Amino acid sequence: MHKEQKKSRNILLILMYDGSRYEGWQRLGKGKKEKTIQGILEEILGELLKEEINVIGSGRTDGGVHAFGQTANFHSVTNMDCSDIKVKLNEKLPEDIVVTFVKEVSKDFHSRYDAKSKTYEYRIDTRAVPSVFTRKYAYSHPEPLDEEAMIEAASYLIGEHDFRGFSSKMNDKRTTIRTIYQLDVRKDTEEIRIVIKGNGFLYNMVRIIVGTLLLVGEGKMSKEDVNQVLITGNRTEAGPTISSQGLYLKSVDY
Amino acid sequence: MHKEQKKSRNILLILMYDGSRYEGWQRLGKGKKEKTIQGILEEILGELLKEEINVIGSGRTDGGVHAFGQTANFHSVTNMDCSDIKVKLNEKLPEDIVVTFVKEVSKDFHSRYDAKSKTYEYRIDTRAVPSVFTRKYAYSHPEPLDEEAMIEAASYLIGEHDFRGFSSKMNDKRTTIRTIYQLDVRKDTEEIRIVIKGNGFLYNMVRIIVGTLLLVGEGKMSKEDVNQVLITGNRTEAGPTISSQGLYLKSVDY
Repeated sequence: MHKEQKKSRNILLILMYDGSRYEGWQRLGKGKKEKTIQGILEEILGELLKEEINVIGSGRTDGGVHAFGQTANFHSVTNMDCSDIKVKLNEKLPEDIVVTFVKEVSKDFHSRYDAKSKTYEYRIDTRAVPSVFTRKYAYSHPEPLDEEAMIEAASYLIGEHDFRGFSSKMNDKRTTIRTIYQLDVRKDTEEIRIVIKGNGFLYNMVRIIVGTLLLVGEGKMSKEDVNQVLITGNRTEAGPTISSQGLYLKSVDY
Repeated sequence: MHKEQKKSRNILLILMYDGSRYEGWQRLGKGKKEKTIQGILEEILGELLKEEINVIGSGRTDGGVHAFGQTANFHSVTNMDCSDIKVKLNEKLPEDIVVTFVKEVSKDFHSRYDAKSKTYEYRIDTRAVPSVFTRKYAYSHPEPLDEEAMIEAASYLIGEHDFRGFSSKMNDKRTTIRTIYQLDVRKDTEEIRIVIKGNGFLYNMVRIIVGTLLLVGEGKMSKEDVNQVLITGNRTEAGPTISSQGLYLKSVDY
């Protein structure tokens, strides 16, 4: 049994955050003064519960990435009610991080290992002049995009594939096979939203997929080119890693 | 002929701004170091066109109020193309102010005097835990609201009425009669949006109307109470002046 699990309770949190001001989810090291979501949560929970708290996230989010439903859990010896934890935590958290749900779960629940799928959303502002209200929350692309071509190209990526060509870091020992359950390109009046749900994602995979679909929308890549990246696994044939500012972790399913 | 009209051209601007950081539209006085939208526009246009520029807005917006389509005009002797003015202005403006449209208009056009109607929108975030993404852009009201009652009460305000009970400042010499053409209460999944279009608005009128409709939504005022404020003209019987953070000047019609 892991040290943490000796603590009597396991508490699940669902978090919404505006990632603009942060260097991402993951605490970089003890004593480092970096601003991360995990670091701030552990500091505030430690003060609140008067014990050292390790927060386990469903996964890292990069610097600037936002979340509607990041999931995390921590082990604790506290007697505090979950509803009190929620209220007190929200009182102490900065205004760009909010806890939307707190619940006690079984002692062996693990936010990362038990995640069955994750859903991300990417917002593209297609206004001729980008909106001042979404300047931190969407990627501005004022030139026209062929969203029909994007939808067709996206269909090649759905299903189980080797996504090594859509990842920034190569680690030959680990599998690069993942399953994408859903990859929707949705057009609003002034935005395109790309929703992607999968059983797991390689490093920068969502951002590279969006960067690739944007090249398709611009007419610089064909759907066959996209399929070719799946076949060759060659990162240099895919599109760029797009900016994190339009990316949201929407939800994690267990 | 007004001094300004002796300048050879009259340029119309449509502006979008995030009012969060500003003390409102109106420049308070020469040499004052306040942050106002008008003050910043005049300073940047002055630098760009190398002449003193007076910007005329369709009306003031209060501190914190946002705009999708504020309209303004200025007189100038410049030869610069409107498309160049737009590009260069947007290069120099801070990231929370954007010019979406620039066009030369007839010399006697006046943004304030010629405005036929204005449309405002007020956003109310009804999530149990307020969204971090709209914390500067919507008013948080986590308790349930009876929007059917709000819609019914709103119907009393449509049309031509004396709105003195819905205004903060009394000036007996000026008429307090205005016409509201449209007053919609729209319910989204997690927001209520109040859209109000009228031929003109008294000081704080939109914010007091929204504050009053919120009391109706909370069951603390009836639609008859709202009608009573129209009859008596008594400001103390209406709801509070609600926070400016959820308020947007959507458009001005000429």
